[in-house]
Amino acid sequence: MIRFSEKDPYAPIQYSYEVSRILYRGKSKFQDIMVFENPFFGKVLVLDGVVQITERDEFFYHEMLVHVVMNALPNPRKVIVIGGGDGGTVREVLRHKSVEKVYFIEIDEEVINVSKKFFPKVASGMRDKRVEIKCMDGAEFVKGRQGDIDAVIVDSTDIVGFAKSLFTKKFFRAIKKCLTEDGMFVTLSESLHFHREIVAEVQETMKAVFPIVDLYTAPLATYAGNWWSFSVGSKKLDPRVIRRKHKLSTKYYCNGIHASAFLPNEMYQRLLSNKLGW
Amino acid sequence: MIRFSEKDPYAPIQYSYEVSRILYRGKSKFQDIMVFENPFFGKVLVLDGVVQITERDEFFYHEMLVHVVMNALPNPRKVIVIGGGDGGTVREVLRHKSVEKVYFIEIDEEVINVSKKFFPKVASGMRDKRVEIKCMDGAEFVKGRQGDIDAVIVDSTDIVGFAKSLFTKKFFRAIKKCLTEDGMFVTLSESLHFHREIVAEVQETMKAVFPIVDLYTAPLATYAGNWWSFSVGSKKLDPRVIRRKHKLSTKYYCNGIHASAFLPNEMYQRLLSNKLGW
Repeated sequence: MIRFSEKDPYAPIQYSYEVSRILYRGKSKFQDIMVFENPFFGKVLVLDGVVQITERDEFFYHEMLVHVVMNALPNPRKVIVIGGGDGGTVREVLRHKSVEKVYFIEIDEEVINVSKKFFPKVASGMRDKRVEIKCMDGAEFVKGRQGDIDAVIVDSTDIVGFAKSLFTKKFFRAIKKCLTEDGMFVTLSESLHFHREIVAEVQETMKAVFPIVDLYTAPLATYAGNWWSFSVGSKKLDPRVIRRKHKLSTKYYCNGIHASAFLPNEMYQRLLSNKLGW
Repeated sequence: MIRFSEKDPYAPIQYSYEVSRILYRGKSKFQDIMVFENPFFGKVLVLDGVVQITERDEFFYHEMLVHVVMNALPNPRKVIVIGGGDGGTVREVLRHKSVEKVYFIEIDEEVINVSKKFFPKVASGMRDKRVEIKCMDGAEFVKGRQGDIDAVIVDSTDIVGFAKSLFTKKFFRAIKKCLTEDGMFVTLSESLHFHREIVAEVQETMKAVFPIVDLYTAPLATYAGNWWSFSVGSKKLDPRVIRRKHKLSTKYYCNGIHASAFLPNEMYQRLLSNKLGW
């Protein structure tokens, strides 16, 4: 059997997948890009040796990255998506009819091209007239913008290498300035199983910038550590509160999941004080 | 680097671990047994090529298998634990002061011996005077017992091979007869990511026997599919209701987790009607 094994130096368990076919191998200015086919997951997108999305289960991640914040906002109209070159995050954002404009900022144009070709259902939103695609550094894009954005969503690769600039206090401050008074910011923040120190660090950095900071999780089979965390920074509104009944047909996210995805306060406090005990 | 790769034909992702030292290799009447050491997880117990527990994260599984049902019961005194030869489940049961008697039924004595030697903290409850150890088939033990048991907890290996007899209607009926009127039964029931058909099947089989059947989940890093499910059968009481405030010092389980671990009803109904969409 031909197998692909992830090259993730930060994962104490290495994940390995059966490969039925290799569909694409290439090298962009920023990273190695590969697409292969697996009997269970369908097509799999790999960047620098780490699985980013699979046809079968991408919705877990994309739904949870997008719909929590979108449903915690009363009326999100303008959204910035940074990263997520596959297009899944943009696709989910566009499903909210209140959305008038999506700035889609992906540093690596090649990821967009590969996704359009091999993951057309994931990339489907990119042709929507509300989307403006810019291939540039997200940190550069948000610099000095007006406060007219309702949600900023960061869908980067792991918090190492060139994605690091998206987790600094400086970047968070620039995002805060972009946001309307009700605005919210959400970013992936790694696994509570494998990287709880990073999770806590992202929370602390966000707390230095945003008055309200919180954390929710989702079970993701194809990301190392699986128990994946998402960090929210908000200027005024509590992201745990659902302000719009979810009527979209989603597979994992629902209002019941929104409520239970946030850590119980007791566990959240232990995370911050480094007393989780694992 | 020396690595151990799991041999799990039912897992679409193969998990592989760095091995610092092999501490034990043996073969019992029932299965291959191995203990190795890993830099992140500490000692790891492997049965028939599949990881059962690790020193670092065993508490996730044991706490969640035990404390949900134990805290949903008003006053659990007599408990049967089937499987779980490492002793972690028995250890967690014994922490409840109401418990007077634990019947610990493990088919493979060798697992008990290996655990006592290499995982003394996990096996720590086995010497407790309230514990009666019997090395025999759990299905045989429960046959024809009186209705004096408050909780039956099944902590078996995966639902294949010799553990299969612990997931039949016949076995569930025998358990129901063991239980007091308030009694509850809980068993592992595989991953919602990788084995949702099995999860649904266990629920359906239990529904043919128990008036109340439910499902909760926990994130387990070392079990394939990670988003692990636990199935509860109850004669009268709703397992979602916490009847005793949890005062034990636990790392993952807390009353907040008890509440949020059960699937939202919307998702639970989709599981049963095979409409989860993945």
